[in-house]
Amino acid sequence: MPPHNPLVDDRTVDFILFEVLDVSALLALPAFRDHTPDTLQLFLAATRRLAREVLYPAYKPMDEVAPRLVDGKVRVHPLMKDLYPRLVELGLLNATRPAEVGGQQLPFTIMTLASAYPMAANLSAYGYLGLTAGAARLLESFGSDDLKERFMAPMYSGAWTGTMALTEPQAGSSLSDVQSRATPAGDHYLIRGSKIFISGGDHDIADNIVHLTLARIDGAPPGIKGVSLFAIPRLRPEAGALVPNDVHVAGVIHKIGWRGLPSLALNYGEQDDCHGYLVGEPNRGIHYMFQMMNEARLMVGMNAVATASVAYHEALDYARNRPQGRPLTNKDPRSPQVPIIAHEDVRRMLLRQKAIVEAGLLLLAVTARYADLAEYAETDDERRRARLLLDLLTPLAKTFPAERGFEVNALAVQVLGGYGYSSEYLPEAWLRDQKLNSLHEGTTGIQSLDLLARKVPAEGGAALRALLEEIASSVTAAKRAGIADTWCTRVEQAAAELRDVSLHLFGVGQSGDVEAMLRHSVDYLEMMATVVVGWLWLRMATAAEAGLHHHPEDLAFYQGKRCAAQYWIEGELGRVAHWAALCRSGEDSYARMQSDWF
Amino acid sequence: MPPHNPLVDDRTVDFILFEVLDVSALLALPAFRDHTPDTLQLFLAATRRLAREVLYPAYKPMDEVAPRLVDGKVRVHPLMKDLYPRLVELGLLNATRPAEVGGQQLPFTIMTLASAYPMAANLSAYGYLGLTAGAARLLESFGSDDLKERFMAPMYSGAWTGTMALTEPQAGSSLSDVQSRATPAGDHYLIRGSKIFISGGDHDIADNIVHLTLARIDGAPPGIKGVSLFAIPRLRPEAGALVPNDVHVAGVIHKIGWRGLPSLALNYGEQDDCHGYLVGEPNRGIHYMFQMMNEARLMVGMNAVATASVAYHEALDYARNRPQGRPLTNKDPRSPQVPIIAHEDVRRMLLRQKAIVEAGLLLLAVTARYADLAEYAETDDERRRARLLLDLLTPLAKTFPAERGFEVNALAVQVLGGYGYSSEYLPEAWLRDQKLNSLHEGTTGIQSLDLLARKVPAEGGAALRALLEEIASSVTAAKRAGIADTWCTRVEQAAAELRDVSLHLFGVGQSGDVEAMLRHSVDYLEMMATVVVGWLWLRMATAAEAGLHHHPEDLAFYQGKRCAAQYWIEGELGRVAHWAALCRSGEDSYARMQSDWF
Repeated sequence: MPPHNPLVDDRTVDFILFEVLDVSALLALPAFRDHTPDTLQLFLAATRRLAREVLYPAYKPMDEVAPRLVDGKVRVHPLMKDLYPRLVELGLLNATRPAEVGGQQLPFTIMTLASAYPMAANLSAYGYLGLTAGAARLLESFGSDDLKERFMAPMYSGAWTGTMALTEPQAGSSLSDVQSRATPAGDHYLIRGSKIFISGGDHDIADNIVHLTLARIDGAPPGIKGVSLFAIPRLRPEAGALVPNDVHVAGVIHKIGWRGLPSLALNYGEQDDCHGYLVGEPNRGIHYMFQMMNEARLMVGMNAVATASVAYHEALDYARNRPQGRPLTNKDPRSPQVPIIAHEDVRRMLLRQKAIVEAGLLLLAVTARYADLAEYAETDDERRRARLLLDLLTPLAKTFPAERGFEVNALAVQVLGGYGYSSEYLPEAWLRDQKLNSLHEGTTGIQSLDLLARKVPAEGGAALRALLEEIASSVTAAKRAGIADTWCTRVEQAAAELRDVSLHLFGVGQSGDVEAMLRHSVDYLEMMATVVVGWLWLRMATAAEAGLHHHPEDLAFYQGKRCAAQYWIEGELGRVAHWAALCRSGEDSYARMQSDWF
Repeated sequence: MPPHNPLVDDRTVDFILFEVLDVSALLALPAFRDHTPDTLQLFLAATRRLAREVLYPAYKPMDEVAPRLVDGKVRVHPLMKDLYPRLVELGLLNATRPAEVGGQQLPFTIMTLASAYPMAANLSAYGYLGLTAGAARLLESFGSDDLKERFMAPMYSGAWTGTMALTEPQAGSSLSDVQSRATPAGDHYLIRGSKIFISGGDHDIADNIVHLTLARIDGAPPGIKGVSLFAIPRLRPEAGALVPNDVHVAGVIHKIGWRGLPSLALNYGEQDDCHGYLVGEPNRGIHYMFQMMNEARLMVGMNAVATASVAYHEALDYARNRPQGRPLTNKDPRSPQVPIIAHEDVRRMLLRQKAIVEAGLLLLAVTARYADLAEYAETDDERRRARLLLDLLTPLAKTFPAERGFEVNALAVQVLGGYGYSSEYLPEAWLRDQKLNSLHEGTTGIQSLDLLARKVPAEGGAALRALLEEIASSVTAAKRAGIADTWCTRVEQAAAELRDVSLHLFGVGQSGDVEAMLRHSVDYLEMMATVVVGWLWLRMATAAEAGLHHHPEDLAFYQGKRCAAQYWIEGELGRVAHWAALCRSGEDSYARMQSDWF
């Protein structure tokens, strides 16, 4: 019997890996020679099991009892003391890292899909791990051998955890306004300042915490060019012991979701005794952080897909089992009620959820595959092309699941009706969890500017050209597989529209009116994401044709993929014209609007 | 100094009443002869004051401390004991009712706009009143004199409250499956059954509660034709005293919003001693309920507008006062940060909110005006035409604010960024509140079916023709006022598209394929709502031209209206083509989709 809520559909993940993406080709690269499809399956199986059997049952208790501040220390849910070591044990902290730092050099593609399970099961529990991996990774890339030994190693081993401490109360998204200060003091710096929204910034599940913190060295230039990166532990190693390092919890933010993971305001150096250790060179902090940004944004994107996925499966299960009403054409009140999935309008909601969730999984996997190729492909050209596509797709892979995933989560509440509106059922909790994903790691507005102002115009539009080539080659493959011409044409036309609108906006930008070019950047991102998802559904439909040929017994599975592809290609692609028209016209209502006109 | 959060903009309400709708013409009707613009303003002013000074400060405490079940009785927030009499004192329970039942026969148009304030301030507090008014109104319309005296009078006086008890655990939206039973027993019936999601079903703010309850008399036919309406008090009057009537609280639903108003499961007749009093004739219960449905649905629509409005104003205030970042063209990190409203992307979110909220206010006011005319216009023709328009617009006036209002509420969280994600700030609470509005009083799916299967085809499409005439006459007025031809043309074309798609769907229905006709009913509703809102913004733009002529000192106010009109007419109307294409093509992915293909 299938589980009540599988969190993420295994068969779809396997389909993506082996039928859509041909992960075997990736495993043929020298970097991944230690892996085979079988070892990947073992890794996936262990991750799925932990997610379903251990992490998921802990989700609701952790949502219900949020971390508390007791005598200046944060106490998180007691279950976390057990969960964290079990996540570490699976090897998730450094699975993609090389053997030198204890890792298995697993393809990031695999890690990305595997991580969907623990995220869907219990995103807060996984959050401690994701943050620690990110902090350790920064030290691995930019830290001295000494910092690696003292701070990175205990994070990768699971003994300590890590955080990313960027945001300050007065600055929010504006990192150039970071004001925390660092004063040179021999082999370290004395740090003073305040940070806010620091996830996992204090807890009682591990001995120590290393805060990877942005601060400004005395006399540094203003703006982002004067921001440096520091490792700042809660307890600092001194004479073989760990002594308090003058980092204090100033307050707990009462977040509406991710309630198992504390978000804190931290004060550094209240007693002028906070030691920070410079990572890399002075004034390069933002540069280092940005090198980690792709991974962090893809993690947020996968979190969004996972949070949508678990809610979709919950709604699906409910719709299959809840009897209510009768078909429109049946007026006999004595006939039994039907499960609500028999109503077209309920299937409309579920198919929309499925189309978004499964395309989201593939979008993250495709983007992660480019990350693997950008690092490990065998030729410079392949690596360069993969890097362009990785950079281009990252803002989409973060924002599409965050925005459309929120819609999936709202639809899950809707499918459950009045029960969905009650906290006895889980969909409302995932709806709260999801809302964070359009806010952190760069808001939707910031992602859209990043896409249109930086990623698309980079290298004369080379990334966009590469994407259009990929789409064209998928269309060719679809035709060869016998996919209907109408679908191929719709995807081709949507891609052409994307190209034309982009060229138009380049022209506007080159004429000097950068504000007009960027005015509809959010619409532009929605348009590109919708086109890209159309491309991805065409690829899945193509793979489904081949799959049906080899596995006719899986007819129901492949029919589902065809229906979802139809939903997106025949339905959603029709929205592209609207966004294209807005981008072209540069409709300027909110540009003209003034503060006192509201 | 303007208040921090006005809840609803007074100047916009006045604009709607006196500049867009010409409420003076309404007051000229004999039914409203006791009222003048001045008495309306007094009523509005008193309502605004109570909302701002009394109801709003109680909102957060009531959200934080939900009702509790103690020894089988519900205890609500202690503040409610003070708030309820003050709402009653304002005359809100029966303001629109005639003098015979203690009312002022105020136009429903005024009541609708006035109610936006208490709803925006504290929707739970207002909920007790709205439910009581609805229950009393049912007795006023259909009850015997005895029931009016015993039950209606104490509800209208504020001494008792009322509920609407329709939903049962096994039936949800399917009222034909109501199973509660009523056995004749002399002058009353003995009731047995269970109801769920009964708002205000128990509390400690008034002496008694009258549940207007659907149940089936023994031997009644199956389906909705066998459902009767009963008045069932918590305590029944017997020999001059109030004695317990065997109605018991079976459980409290932990709702995610509206947390000041308990939602309960109730059991009737556990000891076979629950007396119910038949309202009107046997087996006419659903018919009676449906006569109240328009008002109930408009109340939900206004709740949705109000909940969006208060969040919009909170976001606006935050955006004006929160400094962060610099304009795209300013690269000097030493320059001061600007308030975030200076960023176009923030104004994009705020203008979208404004466009939805203010059109929502007007949509409810226009619909309420048709309700007034349907009842009180002087000729049969006028009343009939108004009734058609009222019926047609009601599903839009309920659903557009519920669905787009939810988006407004999510945008308010987004504007506040990380702070918006915390329960220290209010937008997340309104986001939770709002989600109910797409679920209760008929889900969005049910409203869409009601629109396309019943309201649009009624009387050979007469209602739609009347709407199209109204739009055409507004376009004529807009041209006369000097509104740009491009705007007039866009509204005309959108209306023509609505007409053509409707005719196409009629044809599909007449050919016998009702399921195909109704397949895209949700898209059809979104399309019609978007066209109607385009019409309403054209009307507001037209009124703004006239207003500027008479009140040039209000330039900023009218410029805001023009920008919002531009946003909708030049921007949003562009979405219509997509929905029209879906309705025409009958794209059938979710129709074909089967349960085991998901």
